[in-house]
Amino acid sequence: MAEVVTNTQRTDLALVDALGEFGVATIHEAQGRIGLLASRLRPIYRPTRVAGNALTCEVAPGDNWSIHVAVEQAQPGDILVVTPTSPCDDGYFGELLATSLRAHGVRGLVIDAGVRDVADLTAMGFPVWSKTISAQGTVKETPANVQTPIVCAGAYIRPGDVIVADDDGVVVVRREDAQRVLDASRTREENEATKRELLSSGALGLDIYAMRDKLTQRGLTYVTESHE
Amino acid sequence: MAEVVTNTQRTDLALVDALGEFGVATIHEAQGRIGLLASRLRPIYRPTRVAGNALTCEVAPGDNWSIHVAVEQAQPGDILVVTPTSPCDDGYFGELLATSLRAHGVRGLVIDAGVRDVADLTAMGFPVWSKTISAQGTVKETPANVQTPIVCAGAYIRPGDVIVADDDGVVVVRREDAQRVLDASRTREENEATKRELLSSGALGLDIYAMRDKLTQRGLTYVTESHE
Amino acid sequence: MAEVVTNTQRTDLALVDALGEFGVATIHEAQGRIGLLASRLRPIYRPTRVAGNALTCEVAPGDNWSIHVAVEQAQPGDILVVTPTSPCDDGYFGELLATSLRAHGVRGLVIDAGVRDVADLTAMGFPVWSKTISAQGTVKETPANVQTPIVCAGAYIRPGDVIVADDDGVVVVRREDAQRVLDASRTREENEATKRELLSSGALGLDIYAMRDKLTQRGLTYVTESHE
Amino acid sequence: MAEVVTNTQRTDLALVDALGEFGVATIHEAQGRIGLLASRLRPIYRPTRVAGNALTCEVAPGDNWSIHVAVEQAQPGDILVVTPTSPCDDGYFGELLATSLRAHGVRGLVIDAGVRDVADLTAMGFPVWSKTISAQGTVKETPANVQTPIVCAGAYIRPGDVIVADDDGVVVVRREDAQRVLDASRTREENEATKRELLSSGALGLDIYAMRDKLTQRGLTYVTESHE
Amino acid sequence: MAEVVTNTQRTDLALVDALGEFGVATIHEAQGRIGLLASRLRPIYRPTRVAGNALTCEVAPGDNWSIHVAVEQAQPGDILVVTPTSPCDDGYFGELLATSLRAHGVRGLVIDAGVRDVADLTAMGFPVWSKTISAQGTVKETPANVQTPIVCAGAYIRPGDVIVADDDGVVVVRREDAQRVLDASRTREENEATKRELLSSGALGLDIYAMRDKLTQRGLTYVTESHE
Amino acid sequence: MAEVVTNTQRTDLALVDALGEFGVATIHEAQGRIGLLASRLRPIYRPTRVAGNALTCEVAPGDNWSIHVAVEQAQPGDILVVTPTSPCDDGYFGELLATSLRAHGVRGLVIDAGVRDVADLTAMGFPVWSKTISAQGTVKETPANVQTPIVCAGAYIRPGDVIVADDDGVVVVRREDAQRVLDASRTREENEATKRELLSSGALGLDIYAMRDKLTQRGLTYVTESHE
Repeated sequence: MAEVVTNTQRTDLALVDALGEFGVATIHEAQGRIGLLASRLRPIYRPTRVAGNALTCEVAPGDNWSIHVAVEQAQPGDILVVTPTSPCDDGYFGELLATSLRAHGVRGLVIDAGVRDVADLTAMGFPVWSKTISAQGTVKETPANVQTPIVCAGAYIRPGDVIVADDDGVVVVRREDAQRVLDASRTREENEATKRELLSSGALGLDIYAMRDKLTQRGLTYVTESHE
Repeated sequence: MAEVVTNTQRTDLALVDALGEFGVATIHEAQGRIGLLASRLRPIYRPTRVAGNALTCEVAPGDNWSIHVAVEQAQPGDILVVTPTSPCDDGYFGELLATSLRAHGVRGLVIDAGVRDVADLTAMGFPVWSKTISAQGTVKETPANVQTPIVCAGAYIRPGDVIVADDDGVVVVRREDAQRVLDASRTREENEATKRELLSSGALGLDIYAMRDKLTQRGLTYVTESHE
Repeated sequence: MAEVVTNTQRTDLALVDALGEFGVATIHEAQGRIGLLASRLRPIYRPTRVAGNALTCEVAPGDNWSIHVAVEQAQPGDILVVTPTSPCDDGYFGELLATSLRAHGVRGLVIDAGVRDVADLTAMGFPVWSKTISAQGTVKETPANVQTPIVCAGAYIRPGDVIVADDDGVVVVRREDAQRVLDASRTREENEATKRELLSSGALGLDIYAMRDKLTQRGLTYVTESHE
Repeated sequence: MAEVVTNTQRTDLALVDALGEFGVATIHEAQGRIGLLASRLRPIYRPTRVAGNALTCEVAPGDNWSIHVAVEQAQPGDILVVTPTSPCDDGYFGELLATSLRAHGVRGLVIDAGVRDVADLTAMGFPVWSKTISAQGTVKETPANVQTPIVCAGAYIRPGDVIVADDDGVVVVRREDAQRVLDASRTREENEATKRELLSSGALGLDIYAMRDKLTQRGLTYVTESHE
Repeated sequence: MAEVVTNTQRTDLALVDALGEFGVATIHEAQGRIGLLASRLRPIYRPTRVAGNALTCEVAPGDNWSIHVAVEQAQPGDILVVTPTSPCDDGYFGELLATSLRAHGVRGLVIDAGVRDVADLTAMGFPVWSKTISAQGTVKETPANVQTPIVCAGAYIRPGDVIVADDDGVVVVRREDAQRVLDASRTREENEATKRELLSSGALGLDIYAMRDKLTQRGLTYVTESHE
Repeated sequence: MAEVVTNTQRTDLALVDALGEFGVATIHEAQGRIGLLASRLRPIYRPTRVAGNALTCEVAPGDNWSIHVAVEQAQPGDILVVTPTSPCDDGYFGELLATSLRAHGVRGLVIDAGVRDVADLTAMGFPVWSKTISAQGTVKETPANVQTPIVCAGAYIRPGDVIVADDDGVVVVRREDAQRVLDASRTREENEATKRELLSSGALGLDIYAMRDKLTQRGLTYVTESHE
């Protein structure tokens, strides 16, 4: 009953690449604090940062067959996003699949499961965010959906949504929000540059953000203790 | 109902720095195997080691407002120690707050929650021990206590207690125990140097520590098996 | 009631070393996808790879006494494999024990518990796979079995079985299977070299592995969506 | 920036109630093995079963304000489905909110977070599926979305989708699939009644499902061992 | 190096019993949302509620010796509170110790570790809150502190502080705060009775708590969607 | 490559049933504190106790095919013991399989994975110890070994070893140790009856077990505090 959707839309790569100049934390804030994948997804090496179009792929537990199906759907600038249909920590992905994906222009992997061959993947510079690292391989018995909307690590992701991933984690930006989020990220980062300069000179956030009155209203009090 | 205590005591920095020459495992043993924070707190980069006075700070779940309050209470040589009032994995802390703390002489962060901007924090060399890494930011709606005694990762910590942290974890030394623990740490380390030399020449711990009789008394027996 | 078996068998080191040229994932596949230790065991530094004869050791919770007993049983080419008799995250092992083991030719440690002194262990280049890192030390009150069959991280391991460990995890090869698994690993790796070349030139796994018919039989269909 | 959508659609209650006569496992299979919420959601008492229209509600970490907003949107036959915008184990919900929901005809609660007052909720017979039980209460500072599509415990849920929950867990059926899934569930259950009778008389699944040839093809062999 | 403090203070039992008439959630709120033990502590049977004076006891990992020491310090109305010096899931406590404690008037057990004999403990009606259930027993080799301040499940507890535990979890009330918290609990519960009546008649929390203006100020908006 | 061993040995049922009169904690102690399965295995209902011969069965992740194979190997008095070849929480087992097993005299299930239909299983009185409860079903694509030695929840179990399970957990007794462990369990239980009587009359374990001198030797001291 598995399906492959072959004509999914993608976000323009110029827009994707512009988003990729910002960190995940910045983009997450800029788009209203939505779209973050669960923090259990961690990069296999650091530092790293990548942005691309989501190439979505479900996999059966302990079965990586549909990843092979997904490779054929890849286009340059994609990031493969894999979610198991039930929780699984097996090592679904290794150096051979990375070699194949790279040959088709895929920029990295986000997977809510395990990967293996991490020494090779690191040497190749192929970035991966995974739930775990495991040498436990998988079978090829049950195909699953490719390029359909999925839930990966708690986030709803459609093919062609923008994925940005760095040392802090992974965020998805909806295709139709990409330009707006890019603009908001730029504004946010410019704003932070000013604050950074003030803070590094010793100014206090309490003053820069004018927090003192609000803190008092919310009940904060300053006390001294006796030290006999 | 939150409070900031403004005149807390601190441990003399000469004493703090002397303690910082020892590893966490050594100090933990030297003070009678107490004071260790839970091992879920891990450094964001390795190797690293730091010692300082605890600057304590509670935070509401998903709310980092009181960290801004804590910055104003900082003195050179402090380590900020943050604990949420209920368990939370959000990314409470990033590069802007580190910039601000560093401007006030703070040496690092210990937090039983998440942090973000870890690539920047690593580049800055600002050491952090945290429960997790997460790009999920926080709000500023609810202040919490600053410079009061707290429980962080299972350890009871008062402002001005000494925090030592390295690749193995984090330990707290009570202000009044600091000199005694320093002395015990020195004794322990000298003792270990002798043992290290013996062990590296092939001597057995069984002999160095005279364990053989006690092992026999506790029921240890040596057997051979048949290999037909 | 603890026992030390003093005349256990070992696998020939030439065979052990030949196995050590292959990665854990390759060996695991080559021996029929058995023998993997749970993925919670992670190396304290990366990259790393080692192979050796299992020197097995049980430990009581919070008690590392039997590790001292095990050192005396060590032979060059061994890897110490430690399992607690009930789950425990304490730091059973540090730099002094590593110094002692190295003096006796032991190549590394696999432990389903915690270790400490990881900065020193890393500097020494003494490889360790552990469940956690913890400065919490242990006592010496209760001996446990050494060189008996054990279950470590879910795998059944007998003294002298071959342990191979790398960035992906840890696998055990039974003494009597070592030659067969070595042969199968070689075959597998030669086979992968051919595939790697094809994949890097852009050929699809779907074609290389002739998967298309079987996928259709299992119900995979290709669809297009309307984008109005 | 939070929104409440006031005119969401619902599934006809006759259809909802018909689905509620089947167990979660049956419905999950009948709709093609999709739609299950993560198994971390457990009922606070057993046995229990309920079906209703999803009344969706996001909450900020440690903040249950939007649950109060959701009550006003409730209609008889709804099940409140709550997801935090970042992971949180606080006790968001207790007996007072259950009293309020029941007054508006709401049949139960599904929440990927904590609840409290579980003795009272059990005594009331108000069914709850939650991630944890915690007495830790919440604040009312940050509103979040109500009646928008959400991801709860890994499943994508829209207002008015059908929720069925029992001792095995929670499943969502999309509004537009409800009739089809009901039909498939009936077929499945009839089919199972026949099998149950055969199996209880001692017939083997190997024969009922004609598995023997396929097992042989997949490499299953029967062997005997020597017992000297 | 372990100590037993023999003349600790206790809270008057009339005050303890009065607090025991309120639930943990109520007391936690009434004392300003502090003092809750981590929600990993769960009762072994439900429903249950108990209040008593904390009889504190540390235990070494896998070693329950100091519980025997604690029994001698027990007085009627105590609740034994046990914390391991490093995390441990062993079954420290069973039916024999419960029999002994009951003979000395102890009302229950709170333990951040495992227990066993839960069928017997349930049959006896001896209430226990534990981290886990495990048949794994313990040794008697290493004594630990009794009746000293401890951190148990993240809360700081001194001998004679009041422990209240029910189906929702466990809370500690400081000896010196007991009367104040009792008064606040009574006020809170009276207040809730009024609200319960209003809510059960269908009144909305939005109106009872006058939340509508504040929600608008915080950015909540109501929208309708088109359903073409 | 999966195998079914068809002529495995079993322990005499009279011996099995005699062991089943003792609790898991008693048997675990009586056989020298070995053989316990990990405490993550919990009964789906309580109270319950069962003993039987291990009928061992491996399963592929998300695939319960070999359970059907195992049913044919069942004999009256068996307990089915299932372990996945890589960790999996799916619901491998439900009411139909229980019906089939019961028809062949199987007394219960121990599984280091998930089960479903727990309301039905409870109503049937078919005891199950599992890692989790999940409605997520499994496929039938990959057979695995039946009646071979396995590691289940950390314990090494051979076909025909004795399994005893109760509210505290699950223990395995080796076939060849069954009589010896039965004798030791009887001795232990008689010994406990005497102690229970003494303890319930208020005698202290410190005196019954003559612990006072040994405690002093290990450094326990009694102190009083000043309460000014």
